[in-house]
Amino acid sequence: MTSALKVLVDGADKSEITVTDRGLNYGDGLFETIAVFFGIPELLQEHLQRLQRGCEQLKISFNEWNVLQSEIEQLCSTVSGSERAVIKVIVTRGSGGRGYLATDDCEPRRIVMLLPWPERPETPAKLRFCTTPLGCNPALAGVKHLNRLEQIMARAEWADEFDEGLMLNIQGYVVEGTLSNLFIVKDGLLITPDLNRCGVEGVMRQHILKLAATIGIESKCSLLSQEEIIEADELFITNSLLGIRPVGLLESKGFETGPVTHQLMARVQDERA
Amino acid sequence: MTSALKVLVDGADKSEITVTDRGLNYGDGLFETIAVFFGIPELLQEHLQRLQRGCEQLKISFNEWNVLQSEIEQLCSTVSGSERAVIKVIVTRGSGGRGYLATDDCEPRRIVMLLPWPERPETPAKLRFCTTPLGCNPALAGVKHLNRLEQIMARAEWADEFDEGLMLNIQGYVVEGTLSNLFIVKDGLLITPDLNRCGVEGVMRQHILKLAATIGIESKCSLLSQEEIIEADELFITNSLLGIRPVGLLESKGFETGPVTHQLMARVQDERA
Repeated sequence: MTSALKVLVDGADKSEITVTDRGLNYGDGLFETIAVFFGIPELLQEHLQRLQRGCEQLKISFNEWNVLQSEIEQLCSTVSGSERAVIKVIVTRGSGGRGYLATDDCEPRRIVMLLPWPERPETPAKLRFCTTPLGCNPALAGVKHLNRLEQIMARAEWADEFDEGLMLNIQGYVVEGTLSNLFIVKDGLLITPDLNRCGVEGVMRQHILKLAATIGIESKCSLLSQEEIIEADELFITNSLLGIRPVGLLESKGFETGPVTHQLMARVQDERA
Repeated sequence: MTSALKVLVDGADKSEITVTDRGLNYGDGLFETIAVFFGIPELLQEHLQRLQRGCEQLKISFNEWNVLQSEIEQLCSTVSGSERAVIKVIVTRGSGGRGYLATDDCEPRRIVMLLPWPERPETPAKLRFCTTPLGCNPALAGVKHLNRLEQIMARAEWADEFDEGLMLNIQGYVVEGTLSNLFIVKDGLLITPDLNRCGVEGVMRQHILKLAATIGIESKCSLLSQEEIIEADELFITNSLLGIRPVGLLESKGFETGPVTHQLMARVQDERA
């Protein structure tokens, strides 16, 4: 990953952690990637709430929420003026335990990093379908945890000829992109894949569903086949940094940026201005 | 995990790594756990070969094999006399890349830790079936990678009333224990679950299959249902530290340590003496 501009490990101004950390040894932890505009972390409460749900799901007893928030704000305050930046937060179960068994001596560890904004083209995205499948595990579904080898294997399938790859579960339904959630519009209805069995519940995905409700766009979460995606009227991907990025091409099929996508994009842009 | 007695990070006598390491951020790496008897790492070449297969499968361009081996031997040489110990090796893809995409600036990182031997009772093991399933992903199957949340969730299902839990794939077939491979004996035939779609190809598992061939015990790898396991004549688990541990109880069903298990255990004991 990109080198960090500034790092706090459990509040200390350092950029190393012990090799006994369970995050390193097992991927035993969670992360958040937060956009920073004008020195303000976007959707911070939503990110912290998702992190909290993740901690509950993985039974990580992290509870320094106020400290974490003030550390995030501390790093954001060093970003000057209209510069954009990224905050990455990692919470691990810490060191300790007996092998996989987490015991009471595990004290969660928090890492807050300030990273440069990744410049990306603003053009509609070119997408492909990945062959690496997403394993199905309801116990981990929805959680933004540190076990990301499936995404790494999927992302290794292409170099720069596409912007994102869509990942399928082993039944062949489309779940999400390697680093984004997916939305389609069909006959005016906004649809995003159901994430009950695998995938990451993106903060921006939740935000878009809320925005859609506010402005009277009907939406639902459901299983989506490759055919349904290809036959969609509109297609866009979301994540906390991209906001909304319309899809211009999926494999060899072209897409126009449609009215629902435009309407939602305008809302997200307004919030960021 | 247990605190380390001695650690080398890329050969340096230190016990911290940078927070940008992809092993921490994504679980983008591999590990080996090696038993040390009389200062000698057991089955070292087999462990290094599996690590190499894992690097190839994940396309991690690690190639410091001689250096790694000499670092392992260096730490083993500090173990005195008949003391037992454990070497844990972690190889990560290093820092760098653009998000999930690994780029040429990723330089693999190696960590070698000397850990105390985990004392465990020598009695037959008490096993249960876990409810946390193993996700299926052929791209990662067999590899001892750093994405171990499924094992952690499974191990969190019980405290100390059992010694190990057996994990099923989502079709309900038994794959392995959280930290061990499983063998059954039925009508003189040695059977271990097939690992083509998920699971870890244990070095000790491979060694036992080889030993069995040497002494004329017929064996095969195949899908195994819960019923087939419960109705087995003999049952044992293996890993690099345990060697072979017979199973005395699975859920409420008792097992005797049978002749095939005894024969193989004697061989492993001989090699360790």
